[in-house]
Amino acid sequence: MRVRLDVSYDGTDFSGWAVQPGRRTVQGELETALTTVLRVPAVPLTVAGRTDAGVHATGQVAHCDLTGLPDGLLRRLAGVLPLDVRVRSLRRVPGGFDARFSALWRRYEYRICDQPAAAEPLRRRQVLTWPRPLDVASMAAAAEQLTGLHDFAAFCRRREGATTVRDLQRLTIERDGAEIACTVVADAFCHSMVRSLVGALLAVGEGRRPVDWPPSLFALGRRAGEVSVAAAHGLTLVEVGYPPDAELAVRAEQTRARRA
Amino acid sequence: MRVRLDVSYDGTDFSGWAVQPGRRTVQGELETALTTVLRVPAVPLTVAGRTDAGVHATGQVAHCDLTGLPDGLLRRLAGVLPLDVRVRSLRRVPGGFDARFSALWRRYEYRICDQPAAAEPLRRRQVLTWPRPLDVASMAAAAEQLTGLHDFAAFCRRREGATTVRDLQRLTIERDGAEIACTVVADAFCHSMVRSLVGALLAVGEGRRPVDWPPSLFALGRRAGEVSVAAAHGLTLVEVGYPPDAELAVRAEQTRARRA
Repeated sequence: MRVRLDVSYDGTDFSGWAVQPGRRTVQGELETALTTVLRVPAVPLTVAGRTDAGVHATGQVAHCDLTGLPDGLLRRLAGVLPLDVRVRSLRRVPGGFDARFSALWRRYEYRICDQPAAAEPLRRRQVLTWPRPLDVASMAAAAEQLTGLHDFAAFCRRREGATTVRDLQRLTIERDGAEIACTVVADAFCHSMVRSLVGALLAVGEGRRPVDWPPSLFALGRRAGEVSVAAAHGLTLVEVGYPPDAELAVRAEQTRARRA
Repeated sequence: MRVRLDVSYDGTDFSGWAVQPGRRTVQGELETALTTVLRVPAVPLTVAGRTDAGVHATGQVAHCDLTGLPDGLLRRLAGVLPLDVRVRSLRRVPGGFDARFSALWRRYEYRICDQPAAAEPLRRRQVLTWPRPLDVASMAAAAEQLTGLHDFAAFCRRREGATTVRDLQRLTIERDGAEIACTVVADAFCHSMVRSLVGALLAVGEGRRPVDWPPSLFALGRRAGEVSVAAAHGLTLVEVGYPPDAELAVRAEQTRARRA
């Protein structure tokens, strides 16, 4: 049966989501915990967002295929997993559900504190401390011009053969006390796209670049070297959106019909 | 002039507040930052609550005596201090203000998550994760019997010559989603008192001890070996209460008059 896992983690001490030899990764810890508790040789996980080293998640989603969903599995996983990664829920989903390919959108939040004296020490691993005040109105004005369907090549660290054309459904910058919250929603993201968008907006917020500079980079069609990639620790994957289960079943049926 | 500092810190990587040779302490970091920025040989700090290793603060208060309050001192301190300790504000106070002796009450909060699968990874350094569900109603009932003026010797790690008679003004236990918030207010605390009170309440919450067990320990008049001291990382000093400035001035005047 197909099982959906909702996962949270503190990315600080992980070399990102994806398994890498000799590195501590979220996927590695989760797959080890699942094989330990279920006493099976392997439980490969498919994930919605392959987060980079240092990036956090409060709403990551993964799936795997199990022969059953034993009672108390959630509690037993909590017992063997380290405290910096948690499986929040486990539930059976239709066979058509795919954590990566069924996802309609991903929502990330990037947090910045631009008042260093007011930065909260207990939040310093998830909020970027910026040494000077930022102009949120300018950042928000630039952000508005970045939304929509565009080729985000300028904001992608390297091309992976995959398209860099993305539908940026939302990019909002809001002051929240001493912090600034950047909320980013898109159908999908290319590599380091959120952090590059934030990096470009930081240059605007500091007054080093004009408001129309970030959108002017669309024309470039390739990685813009002047765009810095904001530090990983300010970024959190907050939520992944999926169609309703009933719709998944219909989609899977259509796929089967096409294949037949 | 006398200056009040409002201070926050993440206690994780500190050996507590008080300076100790060869250890990284909050007082040590702050005094070093002050002497660096002010270019003076020493700036001794007096503090409201000498927190133990691992204990956090969002509302710690200290005072020191400076020859002046230079413009931009707060910003410059933020620039030289490590991110796990912050001076939130600096202000001149009447000469009668003493961060330790003027304090009317101290408020601490102890946080426990008793649903390990729901524990938030990014809060694991400030919330104790408890492996089994706790009965909050029993804990609250026991807590109610602990408030008031009592000899808290049973809940003090070691006697320091000082009195163990304290006025516990508030001890409330409330469920907050997957977490439990223990709020403790007293005129002052003896060593490890909050963590011992929480340790006793945890035994009640687990059903290992009856509701009337913690208050029964008052009669002991000495440290109760059966009371475990809850882990430091769940504890945060949240607020210190002082009389209004005008009242401080009157008090200082009275002290001077008595001395004359």
